[in-house]
Amino acid sequence: LKQQERIAFRLQFLELHSTDQRFVFLSLNEQERTLVYEYITPQEFAEIFQGLDNMEQGWAARELEEEYLAKVLDEMYSDDVADFLGSLSGERQASILAALEEQGSADVRELLSYPEETAGAVMTKEFISVRSDQTIQEVIERLRRETPNAETIYYIYVTDAAGHLVGVVSLRELITSSPEKTIEKVMGKKVISTSVTTDQEDAAHLISEYDLLAIPVLTHNDVLVGIITVDDVIDILEEEATEDVGELSASRGATDVNVTAVQAAKKRAPWIVLLMFLGLITANVIGQFEETLEAVALLSAFIPLIMDSAGNTGTQSLAVAVRSLATGSVERKGVIQLLKRELGIGILLGIISAIVLIGIIRIFYGNLILAVIVATSLFLTLSVAALIGAIFPLIINKLNIDPAVASGPFITTLNDIIGLLIYFTIATSLLQYL
Amino acid sequence: LKQQERIAFRLQFLELHSTDQRFVFLSLNEQERTLVYEYITPQEFAEIFQGLDNMEQGWAARELEEEYLAKVLDEMYSDDVADFLGSLSGERQASILAALEEQGSADVRELLSYPEETAGAVMTKEFISVRSDQTIQEVIERLRRETPNAETIYYIYVTDAAGHLVGVVSLRELITSSPEKTIEKVMGKKVISTSVTTDQEDAAHLISEYDLLAIPVLTHNDVLVGIITVDDVIDILEEEATEDVGELSASRGATDVNVTAVQAAKKRAPWIVLLMFLGLITANVIGQFEETLEAVALLSAFIPLIMDSAGNTGTQSLAVAVRSLATGSVERKGVIQLLKRELGIGILLGIISAIVLIGIIRIFYGNLILAVIVATSLFLTLSVAALIGAIFPLIINKLNIDPAVASGPFITTLNDIIGLLIYFTIATSLLQYL
Repeated sequence: LKQQERIAFRLQFLELHSTDQRFVFLSLNEQERTLVYEYITPQEFAEIFQGLDNMEQGWAARELEEEYLAKVLDEMYSDDVADFLGSLSGERQASILAALEEQGSADVRELLSYPEETAGAVMTKEFISVRSDQTIQEVIERLRRETPNAETIYYIYVTDAAGHLVGVVSLRELITSSPEKTIEKVMGKKVISTSVTTDQEDAAHLISEYDLLAIPVLTHNDVLVGIITVDDVIDILEEEATEDVGELSASRGATDVNVTAVQAAKKRAPWIVLLMFLGLITANVIGQFEETLEAVALLSAFIPLIMDSAGNTGTQSLAVAVRSLATGSVERKGVIQLLKRELGIGILLGIISAIVLIGIIRIFYGNLILAVIVATSLFLTLSVAALIGAIFPLIINKLNIDPAVASGPFITTLNDIIGLLIYFTIATSLLQYL
Repeated sequence: LKQQERIAFRLQFLELHSTDQRFVFLSLNEQERTLVYEYITPQEFAEIFQGLDNMEQGWAARELEEEYLAKVLDEMYSDDVADFLGSLSGERQASILAALEEQGSADVRELLSYPEETAGAVMTKEFISVRSDQTIQEVIERLRRETPNAETIYYIYVTDAAGHLVGVVSLRELITSSPEKTIEKVMGKKVISTSVTTDQEDAAHLISEYDLLAIPVLTHNDVLVGIITVDDVIDILEEEATEDVGELSASRGATDVNVTAVQAAKKRAPWIVLLMFLGLITANVIGQFEETLEAVALLSAFIPLIMDSAGNTGTQSLAVAVRSLATGSVERKGVIQLLKRELGIGILLGIISAIVLIGIIRIFYGNLILAVIVATSLFLTLSVAALIGAIFPLIINKLNIDPAVASGPFITTLNDIIGLLIYFTIATSLLQYL
């Protein structure tokens, strides 16, 4: 009976796309998953395992026997294995590495030796390289014969005897050229490439900018050691976009929806508490002007307006700067250009807001001096806020500091403090006229 | 002499990758650009033109003669032509369409007929389709003979006589299978596809989720009418990421760095002014409690703290919800699950913040009642703020309203108002003990 069940399951399950197999797998309970491991081979399960995120891989790996897991990993591309092993403790990593086939184990060790988020760490070792004196016919025969274990066969890289990259030819060009030509004749010699130590985001931008399906990764002596494929680039870009959103919202590393409320709160609480301390600084700033406030309590009513406007303008400039850094347009247009522009925008927004506000406050509060105080403060605050919003991420980026410290709430709080200082200083100096 | 100059320019310039040609082209002045148009053919310029953004295409097109421009467009893939024409006025669009070759013109008209940002509007018509009874040898011969004008030849789609999609085979499979087999034998029959009316972002997620190089686009009768390739998907995902950042910062549509300060200020000013009006509502809320404030001016000092904490918690939850929507994880895990989680996080953050704060205020201000008022307000505010931050983008998404109205600053302002109402209500009711 069990044998029949196994056959029936395999027939249905293996017909699915591996992505759909993964969705089905994730919907099963532990007991059902044990049956899956029994019914399908490690080679078949590798397709599912490589698509899981690190947390899911963690518990799946704990459910598998050591031998089965090693076979699963032997079947996967080196970049996926390195990504999984990188999420484990050093001890567990070593014990799994020891169980892998020799070549695969060496490849993965190499990837793990590069710093995180570099091209070297995310590349895959499974690429195709040929010599320039081979004919197209020979190369196609080889592709046909070997059914190679390469992640892509659409770009074929050409290397010399020492492994230096000398050219590239696409399968499209191979197919559409006459078979007796040598690779030398058809290959492109100006190859867009990246280096093992390049940031993964920069490598991803090269693929996106040049519309490539993969990019070769070289050592500092131009030896070809791996490739990054376009599907990994999409993952990198999505990851970086999530980081950008995290920067704007002080939830860096905490936008993951796969964790429980308690785990997420643990990650988010330090930010909230830290920002609360910054809020206490703001409280202290206002406290300095207690006498002014006791004289004219109505002044408090405009605290939120000054704060919100400063925060909003700063966040807009921050968003522009963050996206400019992410898409590389800062490098093309220049930093000074960007800052001048944002300062200009801040001044313009300040003038517009001040004019609108002076009218409204006169009408609703019938108090011209109050209107002038609030409007002047707003004008000065917005001009400064726009500049600070743009300048901070640029400095942070230049200094290679964790950009989380330039995140939206920090800039907002900084702008709050500046704005309130401007507001209360002006208000205090004009207090006698109020 | 000019002839020699032309040859020298062509030799150097055409050796560059088209992306680098584009960078060089963009660094030239108008007079130099005129020489480029003269020195290189429309077919060669098409490679540069298709990579320009819409604004750059606009001025380049105005510098070109009508006939040259038509030849440039005839050389480009239909999706790129439609993207360019979509940015022009109806009149100019019609006059250019009339100058194009018949087939290309019809293809582009079809793309322009679909609503913006749907799969139908961004797909390309240049794909390869074959019949299932052809042999692999025949198909490869055809690819070799026709050197086809297809955007990708790595996926070959299989259709029946009526044009319905019945299968797909990759060039990789063609190359590695024996040439005498029919396509029927090697093709995959479960094809991941999308429909002309599907949102471009959903189509992009399919490519990313299933690690594809292209996805076929079908009409509602399953007729294959186009494909979307992975390089366009990267552009779509980057565009959507920029939109997400815009949503968080009320600068939607204003993060473009290619416009002048005045143009950017024009786009950003309405948001800032609108948000200023919301700030006036907050001012009004505080104004209601003028008597309380006159009694205890120190209460104003904690306005920023309540506002910042409410804003930060709300923005964190917003970031989680926005990324969950963008990566599709909401659909997999469920809305209720997400909301329960964020409420839980809000309550936890509220408890942590309240405990920290009660200690600090007692120590620095020596006022237990004040500490209790602020801490209780903070606890209630954070619980509500987390829920509002998550619930808003989900509602907006459900109702298909422009998500800009759920942007960070709006939620922040809403949370400010709620937080201050809670704070002053509690403070007023406990005023006698202060």
